Amino acid sequence: MAIVDNLVTPIDRSFFQLKQSEADVVRELLFGESLSRTDLANLLGVSRASITTIINNLIKKGFLVEVGHGQSAGGRRPQLMDINGQIGFVAGVDIGATSVDIALADFKGTTLKRYCEPADVNDDPEIILERVCDIVESLMAETGGPERPLVAAGIGVPGPVQFSKGVLIAPPLMPKWEGYPIREYISERFPLVDAVVDNDVNIMAKGEQVAGGGQGIDNFLFVKIGTGIGCGIISNNAVYRGSDGCAGDIGHICIDYNGPICRCGNPGCLEYMAAGPAIAQAAQKGALAGDSRLLAQRMQGNNGQLTAQDVGEAAANGDRLANEIIRESGRRIGGVLAGLVNFFNPRVIIIGGGVSKIGHQFLSSIRQATLKRATALSTRQLRIEYSVLGDDAGIIGAIWLALENIIEIEDS
Amino acid sequence: MAIVDNLVTPIDRSFFQLKQSEADVVRELLFGESLSRTDLANLLGVSRASITTIINNLIKKGFLVEVGHGQSAGGRRPQLMDINGQIGFVAGVDIGATSVDIALADFKGTTLKRYCEPADVNDDPEIILERVCDIVESLMAETGGPERPLVAAGIGVPGPVQFSKGVLIAPPLMPKWEGYPIREYISERFPLVDAVVDNDVNIMAKGEQVAGGGQGIDNFLFVKIGTGIGCGIISNNAVYRGSDGCAGDIGHICIDYNGPICRCGNPGCLEYMAAGPAIAQAAQKGALAGDSRLLAQRMQGNNGQLTAQDVGEAAANGDRLANEIIRESGRRIGGVLAGLVNFFNPRVIIIGGGVSKIGHQFLSSIRQATLKRATALSTRQLRIEYSVLGDDAGIIGAIWLALENIIEIEDS
Repeated sequence: MAIVDNLVTPIDRSFFQLKQSEADVVRELLFGESLSRTDLANLLGVSRASITTIINNLIKKGFLVEVGHGQSAGGRRPQLMDINGQIGFVAGVDIGATSVDIALADFKGTTLKRYCEPADVNDDPEIILERVCDIVESLMAETGGPERPLVAAGIGVPGPVQFSKGVLIAPPLMPKWEGYPIREYISERFPLVDAVVDNDVNIMAKGEQVAGGGQGIDNFLFVKIGTGIGCGIISNNAVYRGSDGCAGDIGHICIDYNGPICRCGNPGCLEYMAAGPAIAQAAQKGALAGDSRLLAQRMQGNNGQLTAQDVGEAAANGDRLANEIIRESGRRIGGVLAGLVNFFNPRVIIIGGGVSKIGHQFLSSIRQATLKRATALSTRQLRIEYSVLGDDAGIIGAIWLALENIIEIEDS
Repeated sequence: MAIVDNLVTPIDRSFFQLKQSEADVVRELLFGESLSRTDLANLLGVSRASITTIINNLIKKGFLVEVGHGQSAGGRRPQLMDINGQIGFVAGVDIGATSVDIALADFKGTTLKRYCEPADVNDDPEIILERVCDIVESLMAETGGPERPLVAAGIGVPGPVQFSKGVLIAPPLMPKWEGYPIREYISERFPLVDAVVDNDVNIMAKGEQVAGGGQGIDNFLFVKIGTGIGCGIISNNAVYRGSDGCAGDIGHICIDYNGPICRCGNPGCLEYMAAGPAIAQAAQKGALAGDSRLLAQRMQGNNGQLTAQDVGEAAANGDRLANEIIRESGRRIGGVLAGLVNFFNPRVIIIGGGVSKIGHQFLSSIRQATLKRATALSTRQLRIEYSVLGDDAGIIGAIWLALENIIEIEDS
């Protein structure tokens, strides 16, 4: 079962240019388990002779390795094929508003190292990207394995991305990144890498599809509730980005035409009335008005500030006001989700982001409000649940997005 | 250029079972224009030798015909290939709440005959389907061409459809159709046909994609505003149906939690507050209250009733109340569309259905409300426009949905 070190020559980008038939085999093995030649021939609908040629080429190239034997169907036990995990490293990067999460994986997508540190997206892109590259390099050194190049990187950013070019467009949280050539920066440090850049909720949705609550689900939503509210969409098994790369921007859906004015300039936006800061603000207001002794105490110990997390803890301790604030936020979010369920008819909605850590009451309120207002047919089989991957959804998704996009098809 | 009658033997369903490579050629020609062997080889990335074999087989079978010569690239002018339109007839059927529209096309999707008559979906499915089949037969006889079989049919129905099985699920307008085996009924009358059944707005969206405002657009919405409000979704170039086949059911999105109770049992549904009946009702109320002499006169001449169409005509004649009612309906619809634009980021929204005939004021109100409330990025390139296909969108879409689904891939 030991994977042999069968890359004798240094690789270049042309290594990842494959014929369509070869790419089909690689894709099957990358996203599935190890398979025999017969399995692959059946799955791809090609002859046994063709599959032998394709696989021999891929083994010679160093793309595939033989990894032991499968179950016998009567005769000899068939040799199983798998992707050569040693081709090179893959980096998954999740740039948040206040932190950077980075994971290093092998070419089979297995995470080898993981690292997180605070960061400020108000910084110049060069500062953050230099730090990201430095971290990736030290994670590579730390693996202690044979020296391998970085061959792929997926990068999630908290703003709208023009996916084909890998640049941010009009990002409210990180204006300095507008149009910045992230891919070019990465390629200068890691010449084999043509990085994939995507919106943070898209990579989280991708992570949930590969390793979380979205496994085997064709159509689902990943809703991130933190400082803002965003939504990653998996439609027919693929990340759906919309015509301008800004699909899923549900934080600015109006829930009250007479509501308070959001930073976007419009009244009554969902995120302004239901995300983390709205929860904290309502709690501060209530504490000052004397509606909750628990919250007032906490606020005193906190320099007059409260967070959504504080509200969650107060609710867990039975605080009436904290519970009501959380329920109201959940109702508002569920009201919008009900409309999206009618429109999109997803099988699952996965709730993640910082505010999803404030307790189960929040999830129940979202669920109740959604089920109450969506049509009967669209909710018959709908599941609404918290992310089980938590903070790992983004880096896992970034790794798989990178792997998914690495193969180029040769003209034949 | 005359298409020869090259189907010498009667065909059966196995005629439509093709190898993957053959199906690729048929698909290119069906959805594009006539092409030379070299064009096809380049488009599909196969060798000139392979394409010759594939095309010779398809010509022998009767699937393709040679249709004259294209432009020369220096040497001999290349022979162009096209689909043999004479393979058989295709029926496009659009069953509405009060009418049935039927078109008969050749195998290239060109409409040959078209017919419409009143119908009542409250009738038993057998009564309506028998009539549909009778009409199709007489349209076939009327063409006066050589006797050809019906080989495909697409059927749109005003209710949620489980697409894989072709049956309606919990259809509010036509409860007698719940689970009714429409495909089996059609196959008994037309043994070569395995009909495709879909929701009416889906076939209309398909029609717009093939021949209307959605041509060449990857992601767009078709919004039908009539007695109800529904939405067909084209996502990444294909009809998106959701996990239970009920995607696009936007009529029951809540716009006012304190609004009037809809027939679905919930308060403030969009369609209950903005579709045709809501417009007519507001006009009747206003006329009775003495707010519009024009509407009151019309109502008298109409047995005390008004329609959305009456309101449109009054607005065109400068009636203040009629204008305000139309604007309010447009604002309500645009408010919901703004949320869907943020979520789905479509390039185009096409507005169709009976109420779209009440004048341009209605479209401007929808447009204004949508643009006002959706995010700047998602509206930069957004177009919102009336359908140019009008009542033909459904039958055209049904024909193409049938053609798109007729080929089965042989196991190789």
